[in-house]
Amino acid sequence: MGFSKGLFLRLARGGVVAAEVYDVVIVGAGPAGLTAAIYCVRSGLKAIIVGKVVGGQAAEASLIENYPGFKSIAGFELTSRMAEQVEELGVSIVGDEVVGVKEEDGLFKVRTSWSGELRCRALILAIGAEPRRLGVKGEEEFRGKGVSYCAVCDGPLFRGKRVAVVGGGNSALDAALYLSSLAEVVYLIHRRRQFRAVKALVDKVDGRSNIVKLLGKSPVEIGGDRLVEWIKVRDVETGVEEKIEVKGVFIEIGRAVNSDFLRGFVDLDEYGQIVVDQLCRTSRRGVFAAGDATTIPYKQVVIAAGEGAKAALSAYEYLSSRG
Amino acid sequence: MGFSKGLFLRLARGGVVAAEVYDVVIVGAGPAGLTAAIYCVRSGLKAIIVGKVVGGQAAEASLIENYPGFKSIAGFELTSRMAEQVEELGVSIVGDEVVGVKEEDGLFKVRTSWSGELRCRALILAIGAEPRRLGVKGEEEFRGKGVSYCAVCDGPLFRGKRVAVVGGGNSALDAALYLSSLAEVVYLIHRRRQFRAVKALVDKVDGRSNIVKLLGKSPVEIGGDRLVEWIKVRDVETGVEEKIEVKGVFIEIGRAVNSDFLRGFVDLDEYGQIVVDQLCRTSRRGVFAAGDATTIPYKQVVIAAGEGAKAALSAYEYLSSRG
Repeated sequence: MGFSKGLFLRLARGGVVAAEVYDVVIVGAGPAGLTAAIYCVRSGLKAIIVGKVVGGQAAEASLIENYPGFKSIAGFELTSRMAEQVEELGVSIVGDEVVGVKEEDGLFKVRTSWSGELRCRALILAIGAEPRRLGVKGEEEFRGKGVSYCAVCDGPLFRGKRVAVVGGGNSALDAALYLSSLAEVVYLIHRRRQFRAVKALVDKVDGRSNIVKLLGKSPVEIGGDRLVEWIKVRDVETGVEEKIEVKGVFIEIGRAVNSDFLRGFVDLDEYGQIVVDQLCRTSRRGVFAAGDATTIPYKQVVIAAGEGAKAALSAYEYLSSRG
Repeated sequence: MGFSKGLFLRLARGGVVAAEVYDVVIVGAGPAGLTAAIYCVRSGLKAIIVGKVVGGQAAEASLIENYPGFKSIAGFELTSRMAEQVEELGVSIVGDEVVGVKEEDGLFKVRTSWSGELRCRALILAIGAEPRRLGVKGEEEFRGKGVSYCAVCDGPLFRGKRVAVVGGGNSALDAALYLSSLAEVVYLIHRRRQFRAVKALVDKVDGRSNIVKLLGKSPVEIGGDRLVEWIKVRDVETGVEEKIEVKGVFIEIGRAVNSDFLRGFVDLDEYGQIVVDQLCRTSRRGVFAAGDATTIPYKQVVIAAGEGAKAALSAYEYLSSRG
């Protein structure tokens, strides 16, 4: 018959080209995945991206001032430009979550939540990382009711109000700076006596009169009526607790990689990060990884982009060598 | 006396702040060096760039269409934007050549042709790579008189004329494509029967009616009166030679790293490339490297930029750990 199995699957799964074999499936649509796509298609590879959020975490960055070529650009704008570039090259970006991967019959099979299974000859994992939870009472209850993991997304809701930022790294100080131009007061709460952030950010924070540093204080509870009204912190040395009245709590204590679906498929480190070599190769032949989800310790947009390009060129070399 | 030794040196050497100790001296002003500078200064490090050409080889690229964030941008424009970004952050770019480096009294000392010696606690080598010479008769004689290593710089001189491009990799096909929109005819000469370039470029070349592919032909001489008038090629199989009338010859056969001054200081590979690990560390503590001059095989602007950021963050970690 003229009907191929591919056509059947296409009909059965409502539009997803499941029977097609891609050269490369790229999991993740942040800077690493988008750049990998640019390099795949320019190398003549048939590629598709599956990702939950176009732009990934970078899309949530207020202002990116260290991406070479732009003195200052909103994360959302930068990643939108990258996504447009990718789509103009003819690469589809499927908005879906990958729930499983396996190698079978010489192909990689990528199972998604809604779009069925995608098959490919090489795989690029650019799954990024997600905000880490603080784990205090009230955090889950008040999520979206004053508790936020994204200053840029939710900051404008707190214009003229008092907010807290929890954390001491670059993302926490970035968030505090962003919020300080919107909120009345920003309490910057950090367990240690010193910030881990780079000096440039610490200096900037010192220069903002409405950022109040609460060092050596550990958050213990977030509370309120229906919306957040306060955060309780405990002095790490004295154990004394105090309630600080705030309408918003921004939690910026690092990121976690959602790589459980990769366990046993490629080597992960103790933090769930994908182990890669210098050319973005994982422990499994034909599988490459790039960006914040990998063991490269520096989580920066330009580094993720560079690694994405490397992963694509390594995938190209791998596929070429197999003929 | 109030006169410091620093001031004395400053006067003696005509403006160069030789006695000052930088946290980081960055050698090279291409995308890797410029990005390293952005990350150094944002990390609170006192840095200076020494380089011969601002923008490096990337500045000579006609159109860069694979740098994420710009669908299409002239290499010169992209690198100018990066250099402006660096200078706005307060980093000086010294236009000079580095002729020697050594480690002495716990410092790195960087000797330049004209600006004396720069001293630093960490060193980033982003020296890039330069066009490789073909080595045929007439090449040196007619350099700048029709022989060129930069299609973008010199292409416009050959508007409506016949030119040759020698090479079979990405840069050769890039050059042929660029020239085909200016020149009457572009002869694309390659020793092998197949191009090494990526498929996207080969397809593009196939689509240009005024690019004539001469495969399996080896250039043997470039000649003319005062300016280039012809290139002689030899058929690799038959040995038959023919003269092709051209006004320009663009040589695009790869790049060489000018790393002789680093021999014995850091490990180099057989091509003179600086051996680096995943975090851009060289074989010598406190010395980092990034970009086209390193053993990372993919020579791309976004990769060089990403590696530059890594080198700077590794330098920051190194300096922080030393206190």
